[in-house]
Amino acid sequence: MNETEFVAALRKLPLHPGARGLEDDCAVLTIGSETLVITHDMMAEDTHFRPHADMADVAWKLLASNLSDLAAKGAEPVGVLLGHSLGSDDARFLEGLEQGLVAYDVPLMGGDTVATTGTSTYGMTAIGRAVHLPVPSRKGAQAGDGVYITGPVGRAMLGYEGDPEHLAAFNRPVPRLAEGIALAPLVSAMMDISDGLLLDCWRMGWVSGVTLAIESALIPVADRDRLDECVRWGDDYELLFTAPAGTALPLRAHRIGTVRAREHAPLLLDEAPLADPVRLGYRHG
Amino acid sequence: MNETEFVAALRKLPLHPGARGLEDDCAVLTIGSETLVITHDMMAEDTHFRPHADMADVAWKLLASNLSDLAAKGAEPVGVLLGHSLGSDDARFLEGLEQGLVAYDVPLMGGDTVATTGTSTYGMTAIGRAVHLPVPSRKGAQAGDGVYITGPVGRAMLGYEGDPEHLAAFNRPVPRLAEGIALAPLVSAMMDISDGLLLDCWRMGWVSGVTLAIESALIPVADRDRLDECVRWGDDYELLFTAPAGTALPLRAHRIGTVRAREHAPLLLDEAPLADPVRLGYRHG
Repeated sequence: MNETEFVAALRKLPLHPGARGLEDDCAVLTIGSETLVITHDMMAEDTHFRPHADMADVAWKLLASNLSDLAAKGAEPVGVLLGHSLGSDDARFLEGLEQGLVAYDVPLMGGDTVATTGTSTYGMTAIGRAVHLPVPSRKGAQAGDGVYITGPVGRAMLGYEGDPEHLAAFNRPVPRLAEGIALAPLVSAMMDISDGLLLDCWRMGWVSGVTLAIESALIPVADRDRLDECVRWGDDYELLFTAPAGTALPLRAHRIGTVRAREHAPLLLDEAPLADPVRLGYRHG
Repeated sequence: MNETEFVAALRKLPLHPGARGLEDDCAVLTIGSETLVITHDMMAEDTHFRPHADMADVAWKLLASNLSDLAAKGAEPVGVLLGHSLGSDDARFLEGLEQGLVAYDVPLMGGDTVATTGTSTYGMTAIGRAVHLPVPSRKGAQAGDGVYITGPVGRAMLGYEGDPEHLAAFNRPVPRLAEGIALAPLVSAMMDISDGLLLDCWRMGWVSGVTLAIESALIPVADRDRLDECVRWGDDYELLFTAPAGTALPLRAHRIGTVRAREHAPLLLDEAPLADPVRLGYRHG
């Protein structure tokens, strides 16, 4: 089974109403008068990081990728639980984890530590408190809305390749927590761009039942000569969102297109329909 | 680093008040008027299950071990998030997961699915709602209390060895959810016996600052001739708890000893002090 098939099978299991049909990045749990946002992300050696990666960067990124999911829901972090495989450079892992927890003022709540015999796999569960209701979703983009991103894509790709100016973008990504909280009351849909801009635009269009018409000239990219790669590479952790025309945004964002009623494909790039998500971005499995 | 060293280092990181100093099985999160209990457990190939294990059993056990932690807090399950490594028999994994979710009426809330290149590691986060406050802890055993367990130990060991009568005890353990909810208002301390009875008694005595004086003749075991092994093997998922003398218990439990003021060691077995937790039970790493 690949990831798409596996997730399709998971959707047939008994789901919590807050699971949002497993079509969003987080679960939303209403408890009394409060609403929690809960996410779990994993990182596996070879798939998400190289065997000789600095484990401090791996720990930071594990935390950042989870917090980025909270950011996309406009949630403020409450705490995280760590699932740790012993065996790589655990001391460096702890250093990076501590730096991240301090940087984002997020406490550790618990977790589990196991010995493994093969490659290392790490998991993290992040819990946040929703600041605005309803909690933004990938679903909700409406015809006529503008499509925006909070910053350029492609920086992580250049960092991965060794470009000193962009190393931090790959190794120490910054979750857009403040931006997510500021945007939550205004957006019609929001998600983070962890798997590549085009793929995530396709997904937002698909699940919202609309078409996102994107103009490549409007997309801020780290390297204009490599536009095709920049819009397909993942790991940038900017926020992708839609908002009604005329919305006064509380921060600087880049408008990259417009939402239309569903056409043949959920995504148009410079008017060319992209109906098939394969090769639009990064997909595991 | 081994597990003990790693967890000691984690305790120096910024901790959530509900993390209970990472000395308990779960985090306790108060949200408005409600209290949630949150736990994360992992299972790794070779360490927790054999490479050719039936993946339906692995999925069941992953769920059961997480729900067992909720049981020890007297919490009723709200939902779980799954961290899944693709690549083993994913279809069988899904079957076992579904059986467990249906058996315990627990919905899936979300999670993550990754491709891995080596051995498989699975993680699960379980969220429960506390039924009684304060939420029972490992800490709290008082001199004079009785020490109890809800059922025999050693069944999982015999099942692991292939004894047909006990296969289910190893492959399909049953979390003591109803028992935990019934006991929570009455106990002074409670935990599940996932790592072996003696080790878990030692831990409860240690963290409570008391000595648990256990009598081997009182311990219900699956095979009396192999008492030493039965009390050291893990995976039984019974509940270990202490309660004030004279407490009328709402269910049948086995009294295996008495809590005393702290003596030299946190655990006495037939009056012999067991000061060092090494070799008392199952410890990873």
